[in-house]
Amino acid sequence: MSRSSIGQYTDELLQARLLEEGPEGESTGGRRSRLLRLNSRWGHVVGVAVGATFLNVGLFDFYSEELESTACEIDIAAGPRVILAQIAEIAECLCRTHRTNNLAGIGIGVPGPVNVQKGWVESPPTMPGWNRYPIAACLQDRLGCEAYVDNDVNLMALGEQAMGIGRTAEDFVFVGVGTGIGAGIMAGGVLHRGHNGCAGEIGHIPIWGEKAPCLCGRVGCLEAVASGAAIAKAAEKRGRQDNGTILGHLLQQQGQLTAEDVGRLAAGGDEDACAIVQEAGRHLGQALTSVVTSLNPLAVVLGGEVLLHMGDLYLAAVREHIYKGALPLATRDLSIVRSSMIPKVGMVGACTLVIDQLLEVHRGGRLSVHGQS
Amino acid sequence: MSRSSIGQYTDELLQARLLEEGPEGESTGGRRSRLLRLNSRWGHVVGVAVGATFLNVGLFDFYSEELESTACEIDIAAGPRVILAQIAEIAECLCRTHRTNNLAGIGIGVPGPVNVQKGWVESPPTMPGWNRYPIAACLQDRLGCEAYVDNDVNLMALGEQAMGIGRTAEDFVFVGVGTGIGAGIMAGGVLHRGHNGCAGEIGHIPIWGEKAPCLCGRVGCLEAVASGAAIAKAAEKRGRQDNGTILGHLLQQQGQLTAEDVGRLAAGGDEDACAIVQEAGRHLGQALTSVVTSLNPLAVVLGGEVLLHMGDLYLAAVREHIYKGALPLATRDLSIVRSSMIPKVGMVGACTLVIDQLLEVHRGGRLSVHGQS
Repeated sequence: MSRSSIGQYTDELLQARLLEEGPEGESTGGRRSRLLRLNSRWGHVVGVAVGATFLNVGLFDFYSEELESTACEIDIAAGPRVILAQIAEIAECLCRTHRTNNLAGIGIGVPGPVNVQKGWVESPPTMPGWNRYPIAACLQDRLGCEAYVDNDVNLMALGEQAMGIGRTAEDFVFVGVGTGIGAGIMAGGVLHRGHNGCAGEIGHIPIWGEKAPCLCGRVGCLEAVASGAAIAKAAEKRGRQDNGTILGHLLQQQGQLTAEDVGRLAAGGDEDACAIVQEAGRHLGQALTSVVTSLNPLAVVLGGEVLLHMGDLYLAAVREHIYKGALPLATRDLSIVRSSMIPKVGMVGACTLVIDQLLEVHRGGRLSVHGQS
Repeated sequence: MSRSSIGQYTDELLQARLLEEGPEGESTGGRRSRLLRLNSRWGHVVGVAVGATFLNVGLFDFYSEELESTACEIDIAAGPRVILAQIAEIAECLCRTHRTNNLAGIGIGVPGPVNVQKGWVESPPTMPGWNRYPIAACLQDRLGCEAYVDNDVNLMALGEQAMGIGRTAEDFVFVGVGTGIGAGIMAGGVLHRGHNGCAGEIGHIPIWGEKAPCLCGRVGCLEAVASGAAIAKAAEKRGRQDNGTILGHLLQQQGQLTAEDVGRLAAGGDEDACAIVQEAGRHLGQALTSVVTSLNPLAVVLGGEVLLHMGDLYLAAVREHIYKGALPLATRDLSIVRSSMIPKVGMVGACTLVIDQLLEVHRGGRLSVHGQS
C-alpha cells in the first residue's frame, strides 16, 4: 500500500476506535513515530469450533487472547437448530461471566464445505440436516453481533497462520484429522478456497484399491480409510475377528471402540493397534504425496482431534510415505509436524477470522470473505 | 490500490514512456477520462519456449502481438551453451528482419524446476548439463536486454491467463504434456510457485502399482506412464511384441515411434494405438483427480506439444477419470478443455512475463518475480 493509503486506512480505524495509539516508538532521527495497536477494549469475540462429536467455544479479547473456553460433546446430527442454540447459550454465558456487553462478533468453523458468502454449508456429507441452513444469519440474529462461518480446517489453518507455524511460512498445508479429513491450503500467505469453496477436501482423494464406503456416497476415499471414524471401524473389525486380542476384550467391554482407544493401546505397544495406526498413517501419507508434489509447501501441519490421541508412530508413518513418494525437490525443506496448538487452533482461527473481517468492515471496505463466492 | 497510488504508478510509467495516452474516454458526467494504454513502440520482446526436442522463438510487440515466430527441432541435452547461442541468433535474426533495435527483454520457459531469482534451473531431470547454468545472465549479456527464466508450464499458464481461459477464470490448472508432464497452478489469479519453486511438478506424482523408471531416478511417476515419451515407449513395446500390428510395421520402417505416430494411428482407429492413448489419458486423469479435489479449480486446461497430436479419445479419457474420481462438488462447475493456444501459449506467456516485469522495474518497484525465492 502507498503511504497515503496506509494513513487513510489507519485514520478510519482510529476513528472507529478499533486501533489505539500505543507508547511512543524509538526515534530514528526524525519525528518520533507513534505505535498503533488493536484496541483490546473495543470488543470481544467468540470463536467456535464444531466437530462431528465435539464443540469448543471460547471468548477472546481483541488481541486473540483467550479469556475462557469450554468444550463439550455433541452429535452434529442433532441438527443446526439444537447445536446453534447450544452455541448461543454458551456464548451468552461466557459473556455474562466476564461482564462483556460488547460482543463484536462470532466466528464458527464447521466440518463441511462452506459457502462463506451465504454463511452456510453446501451438501455436507457429515452434517445431516445442515445443508444450506443459514448459520451466520441465525447466530447474528440471536446474538446481535456480526457472524462468520467457514470450514473447520480452513479456520485451523488461519489459527496456525496467526499463532503457529504460519508466522514463518507463507506456503503451508494444515491437515485436520477428525471424524473426517480435510486440509486448509495457504498459498503465498492467502487461504486458497477454490472456485466452489471446497479446496482442501483431501479426505475425498481416492485411495487406489480401497473399497470402504465413504459418507460422500462413493467408495475408497482417504477419509474412509484414514480418519478417526475409519480407525475406530478398523479396530472394531479386528476386535470382532479375534476376541482374544486386547481390542476384542475392550470391544466386548465397551460395546464400541474409538480412535482414542486405538491411540492409547498403540502407545502401550499393542500390536494390533500399532498396525491400525500405521496403516492409517500410510494412507494419509500417500494422499499427501500428491498434495506436496503439486503445491511444494514449506510445511505440512497435522491437527484435528485424532492427532490428540495418535502418537509418534502415526506421525512417523505419515512422514515416511511423504518423503518416499513426493518429488525430492518438493521435500528438500519440508517440515511435517504436529500442530502445537491442538485442540484450540480452530477456535483461535475463528477468532482471527472475525477480527480480520471487522477491520475490513470498519475501514469501509468490502467484506473480503463475504465478498468472495 | 488507492487512487493516489494509481496516479503515482501511472505517472512513473508515462514518464518512462511504457504507457501512453490513448483516445479520450466517454464522459460519465464529470471530467472526460483519459485512457491509458501500453506504448507499443516502447520496445519489442522475445518470447522463447524450450522443450526437450523443440524450440519456439517469437518476436512480439508491447501488446503481446506476434510479429514473427520460428520453430525448430533441438536436443536439449546438447546443453545450455549450444541452445542459448541458437536462441540468441534466432532472436537477433528476428530483430534484424523487423528492423527492431529496441529489444526490451527476453523471456524463456524451460522444462525443469526454475529458481526464478537466480535465473537458472535446479536439478532438472530432463535437462542434462543445465543444472544451475546462469541462463538469464547469459542471455542478458549476449542480447543486452533484460532476461527472465521460468518453468515452461508456468509460462503456458501465464499465456493462458493473458489470452485464453484465464481471462474469465482466476483458479485454473494448466497441464503441459510433452516429453514430461507439468502443471502451472493459478490460485486467485496468481501463479503459485511453491517454496522451492517446484509447485506443479505433477509429473512426479506416483501412480499406484506402476514400476516404469522415471528420469527423476524413481519409478512409477505419472510422466513415466503418461507423457509423450511414455506413449512412444508403450507403442514401441507393443510393436516389438507383435510384428503384425500396424505399430509393429511402422516401428520396423522407422526404427522408432513417437507420440505423434500414436496419435495419428489412434485418430485412424487403430486398436493398439487407441488403447495406448486411453491408458495414458486414464493415468493423467487419475493423477489430476487429487489435484482437482485439493484445489477446486474452475478449469483444467490441457496443452503441451503432445496435445497437438492427441485427439478427442485422449481428452475423453482424462475427463472420464477426473469426473469419476474427484469430489463431485469440486467438479460441479469444472471445465476440462484443450488449450486453444497450442503451440504458441508458452511463447505468449514468456512475452507477458517480460512485459509484467518491465512494468515493475520501470515504476521503480522490486522485481516481483526476481524478488521471490
